[in-house]
Amino acid sequence: MLKGIAYCVGVGCGDPELMTLKALRVIRENRVIAVVGENYQNALAYKIALQNVPQLPQKEILALPMPMTKQTDVIRKYQQQNTCRIESYLDKGENVVALTLGDPSVYSSLHYLRKMLLEHNYPVQTISGVTSFCEVANTLNIPLSQWDGEIHILPALYQKSFTDFPKGTLVLMKASENVALLKQYIRANGLSAWAVEHCGMEKQKIHYGVDNIPDKLPYFTIIIVQSEAPFLNPTNLPKD
Amino acid sequence: MLKGIAYCVGVGCGDPELMTLKALRVIRENRVIAVVGENYQNALAYKIALQNVPQLPQKEILALPMPMTKQTDVIRKYQQQNTCRIESYLDKGENVVALTLGDPSVYSSLHYLRKMLLEHNYPVQTISGVTSFCEVANTLNIPLSQWDGEIHILPALYQKSFTDFPKGTLVLMKASENVALLKQYIRANGLSAWAVEHCGMEKQKIHYGVDNIPDKLPYFTIIIVQSEAPFLNPTNLPKD
Repeated sequence: MLKGIAYCVGVGCGDPELMTLKALRVIRENRVIAVVGENYQNALAYKIALQNVPQLPQKEILALPMPMTKQTDVIRKYQQQNTCRIESYLDKGENVVALTLGDPSVYSSLHYLRKMLLEHNYPVQTISGVTSFCEVANTLNIPLSQWDGEIHILPALYQKSFTDFPKGTLVLMKASENVALLKQYIRANGLSAWAVEHCGMEKQKIHYGVDNIPDKLPYFTIIIVQSEAPFLNPTNLPKD
Repeated sequence: MLKGIAYCVGVGCGDPELMTLKALRVIRENRVIAVVGENYQNALAYKIALQNVPQLPQKEILALPMPMTKQTDVIRKYQQQNTCRIESYLDKGENVVALTLGDPSVYSSLHYLRKMLLEHNYPVQTISGVTSFCEVANTLNIPLSQWDGEIHILPALYQKSFTDFPKGTLVLMKASENVALLKQYIRANGLSAWAVEHCGMEKQKIHYGVDNIPDKLPYFTIIIVQSEAPFLNPTNLPKD
């Protein structure tokens, strides 16, 4: 029997209207939807899809549990169980649509699933989504790059120190830790900085300039650092 | 009179279905559309929008000319003329929707326009799109980043030399020059590499592995370099 296709679908980063036409079609056309997290109704990716596909609750939803732990053997066990569960559908010729926030290539929680499915020779199709760092830059109306500029994207959680500033733009993802240290570095080097919490969501908060960035920030925060002076007039952001 | 809003809209990177619902709505709802290039019918961004909005030719299209030159005074003159033209519509209270490939924050030809409009106190709203480098990674079914990985995006055109390999993934945009040099570097360091020409378009071509990457590549090529071994089975890419 022909195997089903596993779709890894990026639903964008908050604003439901930033979902692509392709994501919308694939979610609509298929019966089985996989969502990361035990309580799938609370998963942001599920909520975004639900706002565009109201018939989502009538589909079969596979909640993929993943405990918050750093124990690799526990993580591995859950990864294998989740993959195995999805494969049982693919083996019956049924497609499975797995949802992820933002874009599936950027720090996605679906990475292990895709890797294992490919290793086991299942057909996988990945559908791109709008990444959070692009949406943050566009909300601020600043470019991430122009001409010969470079973009460097780093998970701030793992950054222990900040040394040489790279040419271009530095994007710090999940920037909830080491913020005081980062601010010190930004000030010492005369750089420009912006922080955006929960971009595109109702509780979105923007901090313009290093002096306005708090030392404590939520997990879903992105900090953008540039050597160029900002040209932005912060009052000049129309609401949709 | 209330000024019109200038929308800078990313239409995604090739596949028309990768346009967002928001881009679709904004293009549909507004009467004046701006496109970069003298012959706007040939502009990729126009063609992508046209496939989703067949009534596009009935709208008023502003072609924004920009000569291929490195003379900054000539570029500046065209930038000012184009901006001025758009402002004449905004002044009449009419919105203008300017289209750009990929995402407007990433090497966009609309950057100068947005900058000037903001400096002149016009309301600007930027609508994120799917960037080409995410679509390239997703077409290849490889991650750009996971866990503590970093992503470094560089315009290859301007790269004169490749020295230390950064942690994580290196994305080379517009990688039509210096390819032989890059390949030498990739081989010397035992890295993995993929090149994708015209991603998401009909003439898309994928080169797996450094030995299969030609020395001459078209302008719209992205090369991805990683230190990790690929887990991809190249035969395992289902067509949509």
